[in-house]
Amino acid sequence: MAAELTAHQLIDRHRPTLDQALETIRTRAYWSPHPEHPKAYGENGSLDAAAGKAAFDALLGTRLDLGQPGTDGWVGGEVSPYGIELGVEYPHVDLDVLLPAMKAGQRAWRDAGAEARAMVCLEILKRIADRTMEFAQAVMHTSGQAFMMAFQAGGPHAQDRGLEAVAYAYAEQSRTPDVAEWTKPQGKRDPLALTKQFTPVPRGIGLVIGCNTFPTWNGYPGLFASLATGNAVLVKPHPRAVLPLALTVQVARDVLTEAGFDPNLVALAAERPGEGIAKTLATRPEIRIIDYTGSTSFGDWLEANARQAQVFTEKAGVNTVIVESTDDYKGMLANLAFSLSLYSGQMCTTPQNLLIPRDGIRTDQGAKSYDEVTADLARAVDGLLGDDARANALLGAIVNPDVKARLEAATGLGEVALASREVANPEFPDAVVRTPVIVKLDGAKPDDEAAYTSECFGPVSFAVAVDSAAHAVELLRHSVREKGAMTVGAYTTDPEVERSVQEACLEEAAQLSLNLTGGVYVNQTAAFSDFHGSGGNPAANAALCDGAFVANRFRVVEVRRQA
Amino acid sequence: MAAELTAHQLIDRHRPTLDQALETIRTRAYWSPHPEHPKAYGENGSLDAAAGKAAFDALLGTRLDLGQPGTDGWVGGEVSPYGIELGVEYPHVDLDVLLPAMKAGQRAWRDAGAEARAMVCLEILKRIADRTMEFAQAVMHTSGQAFMMAFQAGGPHAQDRGLEAVAYAYAEQSRTPDVAEWTKPQGKRDPLALTKQFTPVPRGIGLVIGCNTFPTWNGYPGLFASLATGNAVLVKPHPRAVLPLALTVQVARDVLTEAGFDPNLVALAAERPGEGIAKTLATRPEIRIIDYTGSTSFGDWLEANARQAQVFTEKAGVNTVIVESTDDYKGMLANLAFSLSLYSGQMCTTPQNLLIPRDGIRTDQGAKSYDEVTADLARAVDGLLGDDARANALLGAIVNPDVKARLEAATGLGEVALASREVANPEFPDAVVRTPVIVKLDGAKPDDEAAYTSECFGPVSFAVAVDSAAHAVELLRHSVREKGAMTVGAYTTDPEVERSVQEACLEEAAQLSLNLTGGVYVNQTAAFSDFHGSGGNPAANAALCDGAFVANRFRVVEVRRQA
Repeated sequence: MAAELTAHQLIDRHRPTLDQALETIRTRAYWSPHPEHPKAYGENGSLDAAAGKAAFDALLGTRLDLGQPGTDGWVGGEVSPYGIELGVEYPHVDLDVLLPAMKAGQRAWRDAGAEARAMVCLEILKRIADRTMEFAQAVMHTSGQAFMMAFQAGGPHAQDRGLEAVAYAYAEQSRTPDVAEWTKPQGKRDPLALTKQFTPVPRGIGLVIGCNTFPTWNGYPGLFASLATGNAVLVKPHPRAVLPLALTVQVARDVLTEAGFDPNLVALAAERPGEGIAKTLATRPEIRIIDYTGSTSFGDWLEANARQAQVFTEKAGVNTVIVESTDDYKGMLANLAFSLSLYSGQMCTTPQNLLIPRDGIRTDQGAKSYDEVTADLARAVDGLLGDDARANALLGAIVNPDVKARLEAATGLGEVALASREVANPEFPDAVVRTPVIVKLDGAKPDDEAAYTSECFGPVSFAVAVDSAAHAVELLRHSVREKGAMTVGAYTTDPEVERSVQEACLEEAAQLSLNLTGGVYVNQTAAFSDFHGSGGNPAANAALCDGAFVANRFRVVEVRRQA
Repeated sequence: MAAELTAHQLIDRHRPTLDQALETIRTRAYWSPHPEHPKAYGENGSLDAAAGKAAFDALLGTRLDLGQPGTDGWVGGEVSPYGIELGVEYPHVDLDVLLPAMKAGQRAWRDAGAEARAMVCLEILKRIADRTMEFAQAVMHTSGQAFMMAFQAGGPHAQDRGLEAVAYAYAEQSRTPDVAEWTKPQGKRDPLALTKQFTPVPRGIGLVIGCNTFPTWNGYPGLFASLATGNAVLVKPHPRAVLPLALTVQVARDVLTEAGFDPNLVALAAERPGEGIAKTLATRPEIRIIDYTGSTSFGDWLEANARQAQVFTEKAGVNTVIVESTDDYKGMLANLAFSLSLYSGQMCTTPQNLLIPRDGIRTDQGAKSYDEVTADLARAVDGLLGDDARANALLGAIVNPDVKARLEAATGLGEVALASREVANPEFPDAVVRTPVIVKLDGAKPDDEAAYTSECFGPVSFAVAVDSAAHAVELLRHSVREKGAMTVGAYTTDPEVERSVQEACLEEAAQLSLNLTGGVYVNQTAAFSDFHGSGGNPAANAALCDGAFVANRFRVVEVRRQA
């Protein structure tokens, strides 16, 4: 079959973007080819917000037939945290038919080489980017994110992370040349001469196990890293967040076909409610790479049991912010209030424990006692979320009943500094929208330890009174070592304390944000520049994105001949 | 303490070498800074052969006190395969004292940065290189390698592999800048601006578990990769091959001290006979990286049980050469004869199974039947080893009684095409020197399958009659997939057969040498250019050396602040 998209066309279209991505992962300066302003959409073939909404609405109640081999039924049943039944049906697969079919196209995909694979990946991302507004709706109505966040995090930011993974994958595969001439002098005798060919070869099939809260943002790095390194990729979405990844698979299959490759290099494995196919899939011999985002318990299970695969996990952690002193009290409170509120704290990067000296902190507005800091932070959150429209736009919806139950239980853990409030959503009356709760705990009381040393995913934070900055750093170290952390924050004007927090983070391998008081938040990372997780503490065994994330997804086979 | 060796001195001395290594791992052309001609030694501070021998002799019967904390006794007992009792004593360690002491210097080592660490590693390698002739004796009298091989493989080639690992480690750590300024436009508002610091941080302590046959060659990559990425390194040598690695540790400790670092960043863990400390060590929480060369069973155990560590293993495989046709029959026989003879076949890369069509092969000297090929190869080995002096120089000594027992048992497995012969060593009368055995087996007989599908480490090869080239490729695939292979060779003039062998190697991730008839052998790989193993089949989970070998030995911690 003649490809509709030739390699040359794709190189013309995408090589400059790849080159810029390669440059940026070295400089780690700001860059993104994916606009994060809604106004940028609607031109150059991309859908605007209305068209994206219309495209999403047209999907509701339909059957998404991906044309996959081994389809033995149809599954669905997603209900939006905003109350809509999606009613989309996806293929259920017979693995014994699908997995062999996914291997059929691997030789051609391997032989295409790293650059051609990168170009196809960038074309997939481009098609997704053009439908960003449609994906925004799909992410919103599966994750419960508010529209603006579903658009940004689920659209351009997720596409950035996918592109970043492609860039790392390409760079890694390009470290060894395709061919080398090797000539070794032998004194007076003729030199030894060999011609050596080096071929990146895939490991097999990569499995992406998606999560409920960030199906695209957390799914794209593994998907594109595996695909760009020559592997086929099977996507197993979270049963409550299938649509964004099913659309992704559909786009990938279309682009692969148009570029002359086998569409079965990318496939979807949706499941029946309660079927739990992840364990079965994860230990299949064909699955050689697994990318997982989700609970610590299942992540640990994968690491222990999926021994035939390279396993990349992002699990859960306990994120800490040390509040020791600040020269911008107002900025600090505003920044923290936003961090605690965004997506109702349902981010793996949301701060949970705010460690505050019981004797209070120094600020540009004078000394503030522990109680004052806690009360002022509560007021800042109240102020930020006082207007219901703004609250809805920031909080989004509670993603599932477990989060709601944890939020309700949190009030029993200690004195409530800020009570959670129910926010009505006029557009989606069934949405469960809640403001965050802040509970006071005492870091010197053994009884309180169980609460603040366990992850409490959702809009729950603990204002933990500590004896001193040193005590705070000790709790931070302990918590990162035992429970892991995706993020650490600290506010201090004391160079000694800053050094001490920094040293704790270096030793425990945690990513640290210092004195953020403006428009950057501890729970946000930017692709091409910030690492998401460190891969060095229990919260995650990999970072997004670095050499280690891609280097073992392929191997290099050398064929040498006498020259 | 003021360092005797300043960073500037070390950069002046070694940066050009590092740069050349960095360049060569990209081009994969021939290069080595370590001469492999004995004549090159004795100048510029290096020991010549006689001085190296004298230095080695002076070590015999002494106690090698490394000044390590936690020394609770002395162990030794190495007996050379050439019959000499080495009588060297090494410190036995109390791990509960030594391991904490090894962590004490890690902060300064981390803060020194990637370049300074690389420079210290290169200084260690330089000191070792100057004592190459002493190390040659130590390797010879622990591995049983003949002198020339002990010198080359244990000296310059091992140093090359160490330097290669340092280069990869440096390149990997340098992919992210130390500091980045990140400025994100915000339309009409002020841009967001952050200053980001990136620090490579070590995982902890790396454990190197050495092997009997190539203590330095197989030990240096892991040792230097871990050290260069900021980790401390504990070296657990094979009880029969302690001296080369103990000397290495001694040099490393000296250089670290002179450069102002804690010598305990590198330490030795020698053991009492039968103590078996590797299992204890491998599961200690302080050990976060393990490099292992040895048996498949213990390698598999490590991969399954040392879950707190990154585990890099080189285990055992079954190496195959397909003999289908050749346009240089004489060259092929000579090349194969050398490969089978070198170090009595005690290399993880030595061919074991020679797959030969039962209907014979096409050659430049006409058609040759299976029996003729087998007999001609036997004659070629006989010719190569006919002279006892030459035989001793090529074969070395049998490393241990297990290898001798396997050699003796091999004659019972099938018709013997070439019998093993005992070679007297006039210099070392106690050395066990044996020429290789070649046994004929039938690839169509299920009874023979058990023999040729199991690794038979030592001077034993099987001439396996196969039905066709296709049958040979099928056996090759099966054997690589099930048992792994460090090397694959093939002789063919048929482009179709060549493609088919090549495809099998690409799919099963095995390193292939085609039609070698000159002075390069299937069992040899050159640092900076050839990969040793692929990391993609059961023989080894890592390749020497690539990005994956170094990328996960450290993590990058980011500290970001508002600019």
